[in-house]
Amino acid sequence: MTTAPVMVLRWDGSAFARAESDVIAVEEPLEIRVGGRAVAVTMRTPGHDRELAAGFLLTEGIVRRAEDILDVLACRDLPEGQAGNVVDAHLAPGVIVNYERLTRHVFGSSSCGLCGKATLDAVLQSYPAVASGPRFDPAWLGSLPARLRGAQPGFSASGGLHASALFAGPEDAPLAREDVGRHNALDKVLGAMLLAGRLPLSGHALLVSGRVSFELVQKALAAGVPLIAGIGAPSTLAAACARRGNITLVGFLRPDRMNVYCGEERIL
Amino acid sequence: MTTAPVMVLRWDGSAFARAESDVIAVEEPLEIRVGGRAVAVTMRTPGHDRELAAGFLLTEGIVRRAEDILDVLACRDLPEGQAGNVVDAHLAPGVIVNYERLTRHVFGSSSCGLCGKATLDAVLQSYPAVASGPRFDPAWLGSLPARLRGAQPGFSASGGLHASALFAGPEDAPLAREDVGRHNALDKVLGAMLLAGRLPLSGHALLVSGRVSFELVQKALAAGVPLIAGIGAPSTLAAACARRGNITLVGFLRPDRMNVYCGEERIL
Repeated sequence: MTTAPVMVLRWDGSAFARAESDVIAVEEPLEIRVGGRAVAVTMRTPGHDRELAAGFLLTEGIVRRAEDILDVLACRDLPEGQAGNVVDAHLAPGVIVNYERLTRHVFGSSSCGLCGKATLDAVLQSYPAVASGPRFDPAWLGSLPARLRGAQPGFSASGGLHASALFAGPEDAPLAREDVGRHNALDKVLGAMLLAGRLPLSGHALLVSGRVSFELVQKALAAGVPLIAGIGAPSTLAAACARRGNITLVGFLRPDRMNVYCGEERIL
Repeated sequence: MTTAPVMVLRWDGSAFARAESDVIAVEEPLEIRVGGRAVAVTMRTPGHDRELAAGFLLTEGIVRRAEDILDVLACRDLPEGQAGNVVDAHLAPGVIVNYERLTRHVFGSSSCGLCGKATLDAVLQSYPAVASGPRFDPAWLGSLPARLRGAQPGFSASGGLHASALFAGPEDAPLAREDVGRHNALDKVLGAMLLAGRLPLSGHALLVSGRVSFELVQKALAAGVPLIAGIGAPSTLAAACARRGNITLVGFLRPDRMNVYCGEERIL
């Protein structure tokens, strides 16, 4: 259930029409637990919650591969209304979870600096830069926004959902996920690939429906994605992270134009 | 410094032009401290950091009025590169800070439920619903997107910044702030008004440049804003929070049309 009906009054410039039914994006909290212990609450669009939890654990640096996760289960026996809003990840023996770090807004005061450079140093310490290759045809890249739009039924209905999609081959259907939070949409996509044992994503192009923030590039790096493109603009720290992580960064992607901020050698 | 230069390669559908200079939005971490103790790190666009910290403390429920904050100071004597990325809020004696709650991603397991309704119950416990009135002319509301665009120099240059703006009277210049994070843009606006001793904002309309999430409505409620409008769509939980908090919620605001999800009695 990514969208839900709502009553709305429409103003047409001169008068209000009678209230009518419309559709808006669903937003609900999800608590992610690890071994029964709550580590995060995220406001997300329900659906693909196992993948969201797996992607969150990947991009927070807790797990690295499918074998690290024994299972992600929806918790039962919850109070009314909360059913479906709690998942519990069971990790393999030997996977170390730093609960303190994971549940805090605040970076360790010494382990991570407070400027862009120190932030990138910390990220690059956790995730190696992506290996060289492959190459992507710019005309093919230009075809991806239309293919992403075709995989956004929730956005088509509500106008209120972000999306992320992974594209592998010239004609392959994308793996796409929608969410009210762009970080969640990306975690769902990456989590799906993690659970399928398909990391690192060294042959894939990633397209996000909006702007490209540092956080999104960091997540792409955690999954080994060689190219990230946005329909919108990148930020300075996103561009710096892509450069340091050897990721090709594309912004303002359209059928007949794009901006390439780094890693242009991957584009034919 | 909200934007910075970057070199970019432009694809025009058939070839790459020579690298040229472009402008993108700046994203840098900001550590917010309270009495010297770190409580949050947010990825933000530098500028108006005192206001951002004040707005954060307001919308996290730590402070309620200008007198609660003695001062917000930029920390000095920081390592190279981190200057300007740490602020410290000094609160009045008697202001109680629950550091544990403030620095955790995780809601207290019993204090807040994990469904939309429980989330709203918790929010409404912290912030009273907004009082009735005032009334807003829909034609005036329709004029706000153009006035917001006129107050987004960073977006005009980079295409990569969100914005929030408060509008008081028919012709008054808006109080507008830009940021890579939409929650930060709103915190900056609300923090500015808090520091100026102008809360609650019972006569203002708030316009955000994108979609309206639950988090943004919650922040509006914390400042007593009677009307929140978005250029984009709201979510289910945003609409429910606005209804419960007696806030008028407008989506897809344009000069000649808008959707009103609740609180239509405030619109003439």
